[in-house]
Amino acid sequence: MTSLAVLTYGSGTFALEALPKQPIVPLNNATSLQKVELGRQLFFETRLSVTNTVSCNSCHNVMGSGTDNRPTSFGVFGKKGGRNAPTVWNAAFLSVQFWDGRAATLEDQAKGPILNPVEMGMPSEQAAVDIINGIPEYRERFSKVFGGKNPVTYDNIAKAIAAFERTLITPESDFDRFKRGNKRAMSKEALAGMQKVEELGCTTCHTGPNFAGPAQPAGQGFYQKFPMFPGSAYDKTYNLTADLGRYNVTHMEEDKNVWRVPTWRNVALTAPYFHNGAVATLDEAVRVMGKTQLNKDLDSQTVKEIVAFLNSLTGTFINQPMPRLPQTPGTAPLLKEGL
Amino acid sequence: MTSLAVLTYGSGTFALEALPKQPIVPLNNATSLQKVELGRQLFFETRLSVTNTVSCNSCHNVMGSGTDNRPTSFGVFGKKGGRNAPTVWNAAFLSVQFWDGRAATLEDQAKGPILNPVEMGMPSEQAAVDIINGIPEYRERFSKVFGGKNPVTYDNIAKAIAAFERTLITPESDFDRFKRGNKRAMSKEALAGMQKVEELGCTTCHTGPNFAGPAQPAGQGFYQKFPMFPGSAYDKTYNLTADLGRYNVTHMEEDKNVWRVPTWRNVALTAPYFHNGAVATLDEAVRVMGKTQLNKDLDSQTVKEIVAFLNSLTGTFINQPMPRLPQTPGTAPLLKEGL
Repeated sequence: MTSLAVLTYGSGTFALEALPKQPIVPLNNATSLQKVELGRQLFFETRLSVTNTVSCNSCHNVMGSGTDNRPTSFGVFGKKGGRNAPTVWNAAFLSVQFWDGRAATLEDQAKGPILNPVEMGMPSEQAAVDIINGIPEYRERFSKVFGGKNPVTYDNIAKAIAAFERTLITPESDFDRFKRGNKRAMSKEALAGMQKVEELGCTTCHTGPNFAGPAQPAGQGFYQKFPMFPGSAYDKTYNLTADLGRYNVTHMEEDKNVWRVPTWRNVALTAPYFHNGAVATLDEAVRVMGKTQLNKDLDSQTVKEIVAFLNSLTGTFINQPMPRLPQTPGTAPLLKEGL
Repeated sequence: MTSLAVLTYGSGTFALEALPKQPIVPLNNATSLQKVELGRQLFFETRLSVTNTVSCNSCHNVMGSGTDNRPTSFGVFGKKGGRNAPTVWNAAFLSVQFWDGRAATLEDQAKGPILNPVEMGMPSEQAAVDIINGIPEYRERFSKVFGGKNPVTYDNIAKAIAAFERTLITPESDFDRFKRGNKRAMSKEALAGMQKVEELGCTTCHTGPNFAGPAQPAGQGFYQKFPMFPGSAYDKTYNLTADLGRYNVTHMEEDKNVWRVPTWRNVALTAPYFHNGAVATLDEAVRVMGKTQLNKDLDSQTVKEIVAFLNSLTGTFINQPMPRLPQTPGTAPLLKEGL
């Protein structure tokens, strides 16, 4: 079953919303300070990659925009992925994960890159568990957080990482302060841009607290065809149609070139843009969207105002402690030649 | 001129010392909180690599042992370096940098990997400066820290990184607390190991506050031949002689297989060992050193005691804030195909 949203552009059905202060926490992964700390360690844990060089943070850099600001990412052995790394900031507010929505939750998502041969490249879930379970301080931490006889499991690794990711939210953007009552929080230009995105119909899809669609249950994605109006020069210039997107998950004809609607929050910081990272600047991304999704050639004033509005969605990033990664005295994995 | 130390083993000339609370700061790079913060940002700055993927921290992970715990490191494009990454912790107490001593100061050292094609791979100093200078918040920070009309220079990038690195010290090991008067800080086994390393003569070289030679002026290195007694089975097993070490810097015959004496501080955490990272465990590294440097086959009790002593040199690591990396809204370097 596809979840392609069929909507009339410009319907204005959904209102723009401030970001909630907290995301919904799933019942099977209650949060705690200790779990978040463990997750932060694991997020920076290069030992979860086969070469001991790549961590979650390598491509989703939380010291910056939660991306690597590359078109596509490098994984182990200099291998390159095929899609632009989406930001981890506010991913907790998305109802599906990955560009093609192939994971329903942050927990499911976290399990993917560790095993992906062009990302972290671990040979198996068990290999990842063995590495973490072989580090005494991790065993203690997992035991305190999860309890049970064998607390270091692949599920629990993913749960801790997801609990950490749910702390990566940026509610204090100019837009949020405006929506919460500070009428001077946004510039005139940004306010004009806000009006434009509603009039033009951008917010038919870029709606909800994360500007990535209305709030939905986990696993229920909000997707859209891109380009909706194929055939513009942009298709070729930026190679927009080669990757079939959600079709690769569902193999259903109507899912060809269908993608999860990406968030607008902090979008000014997550260049380059689109699933293949082919567009370097935000103003060009706005022009491309106008043409490919609305079949409109946006004038430069409109683009400027929309970019000002999108900049008003840049949030305040939390201060975090640098994690200390548990060490195993006296030994290191002696990596095989080539690893 | 070589600086090979010619010493009689077992002479016991130098006393073991606690680590000073602060390293010496060079006159031309006075420290400040703002400079240290800037240096911490730059230390984690992947934009100083040609692919935007590798930072100083990639190989000198300060969340852990200040190394990557790999035999040798991966740089950009999956390229591999030839030598084991030395720890950045307490590097401020070394009088020369790199395994072969080819940099006199932390400032000089910091300039190397950014341009090294198998590390961060930037094409030129100017290219690195242009990247940093193109980020508005960095320009402001450099201006505040260094002043002047063009504060973002390659020298100043290196100075900020070096100022940060001088904060990476671990004075509170069991050994330091013992030397400062807490006679119960070290275990009996560690104390026995301390006696052994002095009796055997290990501390002829592994002396001084960093157990890497006596304090010397910057640029005056403390080197030793390794193996001192060539011909043991270890030479072949661990391929100890292929890399000629300091000879590659000086091209002087007597510098063949000569290396800077590495620190013992936190050595229990920096496996694998030696310039090529060929030895996976600390106990084996102790056996190798006994044979290659002293021509002695150490018995298992002696190895155990020395390892206990070396573990007593594991310090307390400072808590640090996670840096926020300055962002450039609306744009990213659109990396060329392959980059």
